[in-house]
Amino acid sequence: MSNAPHLDLAAKASVTSGSDTWHSTGVEGVLRPLHLSDGPHGLRQQPEDGDHLGLGSSVPATCFPPAVGLGSTWNPDLVRRVGRALGAEAASLGVDVVLGPGMNIKRSPLCGRNFEYVSEDPHVTARIAAALVEGIQAEGVGACVKHFAANNQETDRHRVSAEVDERTLREIYLAAFEEVVRSTGPAMVMSSYNRLNGVYTSQDPWLLTDLLRGEWGFEGVVVSDWGAVVDRVAAVRAGLDLEMPPSQTDHLIVEAVERGELDESVLDTVVERFERVQERVSTDTSRPLEHEANDALAREAAREALVLLKNDGGALPLAAGRSLAVVGEFARTPRYQGGGSSRVMPTKVHSALEEFGAAVEAGSVKSVRFAAGFTLGGADDPTLVEDAVAAAREADTTVLFLGLPDSAESEGYDRTTISLPAPQLGLLAKVREVSDQVVVVLSNGGVVSVAEWQEQADAVLEGWLLGQAGGAAVVDVLTGAVSPSGRLTETVPVRLSDHATYLNFPGGNGVVRHGEGVFVGYRHFDTLDVPVAYPFGYGLTYTSFAYSGLDVSPSGEPDGEDAWTASFTVTNTGDRAGQEVAQLYTGVEQDYPTRPVRELRGFTKVALEPGESVRVELPLTGRDLSVWDSRDGRWSLAAGTYTVSVGASSRDIRLSGEIATEGDRYVRKLTKHCTIGEWRAHHIGGPVMAELLATFPDLDDVPGELLEMARSLPIVNLRSFGLGVTEEMLDLLVDDIEARRQAAIERGEITG
Amino acid sequence: MSNAPHLDLAAKASVTSGSDTWHSTGVEGVLRPLHLSDGPHGLRQQPEDGDHLGLGSSVPATCFPPAVGLGSTWNPDLVRRVGRALGAEAASLGVDVVLGPGMNIKRSPLCGRNFEYVSEDPHVTARIAAALVEGIQAEGVGACVKHFAANNQETDRHRVSAEVDERTLREIYLAAFEEVVRSTGPAMVMSSYNRLNGVYTSQDPWLLTDLLRGEWGFEGVVVSDWGAVVDRVAAVRAGLDLEMPPSQTDHLIVEAVERGELDESVLDTVVERFERVQERVSTDTSRPLEHEANDALAREAAREALVLLKNDGGALPLAAGRSLAVVGEFARTPRYQGGGSSRVMPTKVHSALEEFGAAVEAGSVKSVRFAAGFTLGGADDPTLVEDAVAAAREADTTVLFLGLPDSAESEGYDRTTISLPAPQLGLLAKVREVSDQVVVVLSNGGVVSVAEWQEQADAVLEGWLLGQAGGAAVVDVLTGAVSPSGRLTETVPVRLSDHATYLNFPGGNGVVRHGEGVFVGYRHFDTLDVPVAYPFGYGLTYTSFAYSGLDVSPSGEPDGEDAWTASFTVTNTGDRAGQEVAQLYTGVEQDYPTRPVRELRGFTKVALEPGESVRVELPLTGRDLSVWDSRDGRWSLAAGTYTVSVGASSRDIRLSGEIATEGDRYVRKLTKHCTIGEWRAHHIGGPVMAELLATFPDLDDVPGELLEMARSLPIVNLRSFGLGVTEEMLDLLVDDIEARRQAAIERGEITG
Repeated sequence: MSNAPHLDLAAKASVTSGSDTWHSTGVEGVLRPLHLSDGPHGLRQQPEDGDHLGLGSSVPATCFPPAVGLGSTWNPDLVRRVGRALGAEAASLGVDVVLGPGMNIKRSPLCGRNFEYVSEDPHVTARIAAALVEGIQAEGVGACVKHFAANNQETDRHRVSAEVDERTLREIYLAAFEEVVRSTGPAMVMSSYNRLNGVYTSQDPWLLTDLLRGEWGFEGVVVSDWGAVVDRVAAVRAGLDLEMPPSQTDHLIVEAVERGELDESVLDTVVERFERVQERVSTDTSRPLEHEANDALAREAAREALVLLKNDGGALPLAAGRSLAVVGEFARTPRYQGGGSSRVMPTKVHSALEEFGAAVEAGSVKSVRFAAGFTLGGADDPTLVEDAVAAAREADTTVLFLGLPDSAESEGYDRTTISLPAPQLGLLAKVREVSDQVVVVLSNGGVVSVAEWQEQADAVLEGWLLGQAGGAAVVDVLTGAVSPSGRLTETVPVRLSDHATYLNFPGGNGVVRHGEGVFVGYRHFDTLDVPVAYPFGYGLTYTSFAYSGLDVSPSGEPDGEDAWTASFTVTNTGDRAGQEVAQLYTGVEQDYPTRPVRELRGFTKVALEPGESVRVELPLTGRDLSVWDSRDGRWSLAAGTYTVSVGASSRDIRLSGEIATEGDRYVRKLTKHCTIGEWRAHHIGGPVMAELLATFPDLDDVPGELLEMARSLPIVNLRSFGLGVTEEMLDLLVDDIEARRQAAIERGEITG
Repeated sequence: MSNAPHLDLAAKASVTSGSDTWHSTGVEGVLRPLHLSDGPHGLRQQPEDGDHLGLGSSVPATCFPPAVGLGSTWNPDLVRRVGRALGAEAASLGVDVVLGPGMNIKRSPLCGRNFEYVSEDPHVTARIAAALVEGIQAEGVGACVKHFAANNQETDRHRVSAEVDERTLREIYLAAFEEVVRSTGPAMVMSSYNRLNGVYTSQDPWLLTDLLRGEWGFEGVVVSDWGAVVDRVAAVRAGLDLEMPPSQTDHLIVEAVERGELDESVLDTVVERFERVQERVSTDTSRPLEHEANDALAREAAREALVLLKNDGGALPLAAGRSLAVVGEFARTPRYQGGGSSRVMPTKVHSALEEFGAAVEAGSVKSVRFAAGFTLGGADDPTLVEDAVAAAREADTTVLFLGLPDSAESEGYDRTTISLPAPQLGLLAKVREVSDQVVVVLSNGGVVSVAEWQEQADAVLEGWLLGQAGGAAVVDVLTGAVSPSGRLTETVPVRLSDHATYLNFPGGNGVVRHGEGVFVGYRHFDTLDVPVAYPFGYGLTYTSFAYSGLDVSPSGEPDGEDAWTASFTVTNTGDRAGQEVAQLYTGVEQDYPTRPVRELRGFTKVALEPGESVRVELPLTGRDLSVWDSRDGRWSLAAGTYTVSVGASSRDIRLSGEIATEGDRYVRKLTKHCTIGEWRAHHIGGPVMAELLATFPDLDDVPGELLEMARSLPIVNLRSFGLGVTEEMLDLLVDDIEARRQAAIERGEITG
């Protein structure tokens, strides 16, 4: 029972904005203020005397790997545990709602905030984000998924209109939000700064109400991104419950109700949503903070996030007893998170350098000599290079830590290049000259190019931004304490200009056209067969895996959750334990490529001892094979044969099967604006049209080429050709066909 | 003085549709019926007893090269002569208005109607189309440019909505129409079938009235494409003067006026436009038809349209006295035009085979043995292949005529491939095995791929569709009677999937998104540095040319027609006479590639004897360097340094220069929705903002990274950060800055 109707108008209006930068507004006896805190990968809870901008210092908290790292684990179970730890820390700190996870699609590698997002693919994004939400909420704390929606760049983010057609929205940019909202029921959704097709998302009734609540059943609170509200009344009317931080303009809401421009019941609904959320969340500041255990969990997550890109001649794991030159400032000063609202004050930081020291003590490494090699400021420093070359010359192996400095990527602005800084590449070339073996470890939030330098490295380990324990995890993998098991959630292109978005990012004049449509990331590269440095889903291990015995069988109704099941066997064929990420893709043959050649529809991560096998079963739904039909506004499952592929990356397909389906048997209504070709191909209209055309003797004289041309003619145009066809005749025909179609629907022959 | 006001309503309404398929409606004493006829490259005048569909037989007329051929000449003077010949034939046949030229941009090589269009580039399209219009209209006959606008595909052409942003429209799809309308004043413009951003072009008031008449000053008649009108009243209201063919619905116009839904003055304007056109056109059926002279002109045009793609070891021109195997059905049965409304009944047809016979008689060729090699139907025929191989084995040189059959491309449908038919490629491989020298001659309206087979040919001559005299022209060039001088007006890609439009053509569900924006054709390939088989502007000759002495100097005001002049010297450095097409491109350096790296802004074709030089002068305007500013709706010439390149193709740049300009000194109005970054960079707002920011002591404590983030914040958002900034304060600030801006405009310091 909601208390909303008992409140006065001013009280209701007060609820639609915060009481301060980090709290919603309480109403005596009805709503308590909810404490919100940044923190998709660790809490950024500001002290009470924090800065006005909301971006200053915060209390210490465990810094888990940012989303780029969590995504690369491809391990929802592990991410769920990270979520629980995050939730527990939040509860202990009195935080009701954690502002995360971020789950925008990585449309371009240049997006400065990509480190806060999971993938270029909506399925892996949804699985990882859902696990994080489940974990957080299992501890009685709310999660807030963000930034809803199509907030795929930082440039001009407060105004830019993402121009995206509905099919692309449904299949790519909204798909992960839909899955997470439906499957986990997050407490909150955060609208984004940008406009979507011209409308600010914070005041878009289609997005916030029709779709999010109406179609997807979201029952929680929608909060604005900080400072995103442009028109208070329009926002509340559209379905935005909470403006943050407050702009002290609640009087506009009151006046709008008094003038009859805003229905007061909208405010009752806002209060009800807060009531529902506060029933679900409860904090407990007496709970102890488990910083040690969480640091260990952060290390475990970081280990699984590392992606081994290259490993020539078995350079990794490092053979025991080698002398190492550890080169690169990142070894000593780890870069483990990105800039902006997600920046956590960590409880501790593990550097790779100190962990290598521990390895020397433990005897797995003979010796370590460190050289910074470069400064994080980015200027050339010949002395540092000389020192590094000297260290490398004397070592058995040089482990070279390269990456992007803090200033290269952040919330708030985008990159213009995916290259590593030139001084670092110069350092690599010099070190290569004197080293027998060079292992490169990367630190970067967004993808960096490798094509121009990776020949100089025997091994390349992609270390992303891995949170406070990342340095330890890197050493764990380099020394072979654990096998690498991360996989790429985004393609590493050969050249930035190969990317689908290259000419449409970040747009200009307030508009960014998503000209590539659904062909984002590997959907573009694979459909066009563009060479890539490393494909989506890729990652090496210290062992090897074989795939066999694919079976694809119906297991339910085509419109159900488990319409088909793909099952297959994965075997560890190497001599070490390891984890494989088995990936399931679907596709369909077409004349023109209107659909990607291959799309990820399932995956599982399996841990196998040498020689061990496991039988994997992955479900496929009708939706997995469907395409959004923007003409009729529905998911369309066409009859046909679909390809089912299983592999270790989008370009390493090991097994292929097929699904043949009748589809949804949907038959569209025919109108006089449908073409002769559409009429002839129509289940009901086709036979009727054939009979009618037979009555026009003139048509016999028309050459075949002209009949081919006529296929694209709407039948209404026949009125202009002196054939005696009138619009009234066509209206009668349309009515007749429609009656027959309705009858066929009632008989269950077709759907419509 | 118009007679329109004296007509009764029914008479006025009758003028808005034709009296039959090929005539406008006359009104006694005011308007005579105008006779319209298909015929962008030759008249397709139907006899009075023609078929109802308007697509049957026609009276003989000279078939000049279709637009694909005329464009490849890069010779406006020659095209103007073709226009005069077309106009003269029209006048003799009593045709008042010729329905051509077609001038849509070749967005995708798959468009089935590309043979009727000039180029993937608007500048060469405009120059060639303008020359044709000038020629036709010089004979007292009207030209009708078409299809206005963005009609870049045949698939679903009667309904599809081309979704194109305004900048792309202005810079690419409308640019050639604009130039031709402004510079030549065509009698008519034909609207297209498709929709443009959701609105049928036949009823788009922005397109037909605001832009075409209002901005460009068009004074003629707008006619619908045949059967394109969907809503009679909406069309007339939008600025469509003439519906063709008539749908017998003039009563709808009368009723709309009577109901007050259509202003009667709109009909007066329609009548006035017809009055203006009929004053300009006059036919004379007593004029003799110059079929012999026009056949010679058709041959001359075809010669200049041939593009020599490859010529290894000087295979061409054919050495005198060689025995030839002439293989391929196209040698005997030329394909010289495309299907649909532009199909002409020629006065005669020259085949290459009969011209080779003449060459044997003249002694330049020793002998010719013909073998068909394949059928135009496309099925494999081993006997034909055997005969061809036998002929090739005995000959010094095999001249192999390959190409696309009639059914492969036409008005009304699009292609799905750019490959040659497989049987022809099989034939080439077999012939290659037994020939010392293979010369391939192509016949195709749209681009065909060459990458997969051209290694097997010593020479490749692109023969397009060249009109009735094409066969003779081919032999003229092969034997060296003339040097080839055609150049590509469209890029030949390595793979279809390399094309910018590959994933966005032909769209679906009634929509085609122009996702590539302005990056059409070479603008895409060159900006992304994608390998191509042959670049835009490319073509070999039998001689060679050198470029020298580029000078780029101001020659007028930046907003004038000759703001700068680029002058340079072209020298024939070979030992044969020949023609060079010198091309002028401009570009500008950018962080993100929002503009093509290079765009054609001028060209000239020069004929030079061996050793001869000519000084070329090409004008450049401010518009040539400008970009369409879709925020403020204007052409924007930014201050900066622009690159000026001169070369023999878009990838064979021989000379480079620069233009440094202050630009148009346009300073935009600042608003509170402009960002802090925009305020700080603003000519007037910048200093003011710097002063203001200095008054906030809190900002000194904010890290630089956060200040960088703040650059994208609209200043209106400052109200949310507890800084004491109110919207009212910002409004005052905006007013102050605007007053200063207006004063600066009045002082002439800036424009705005």
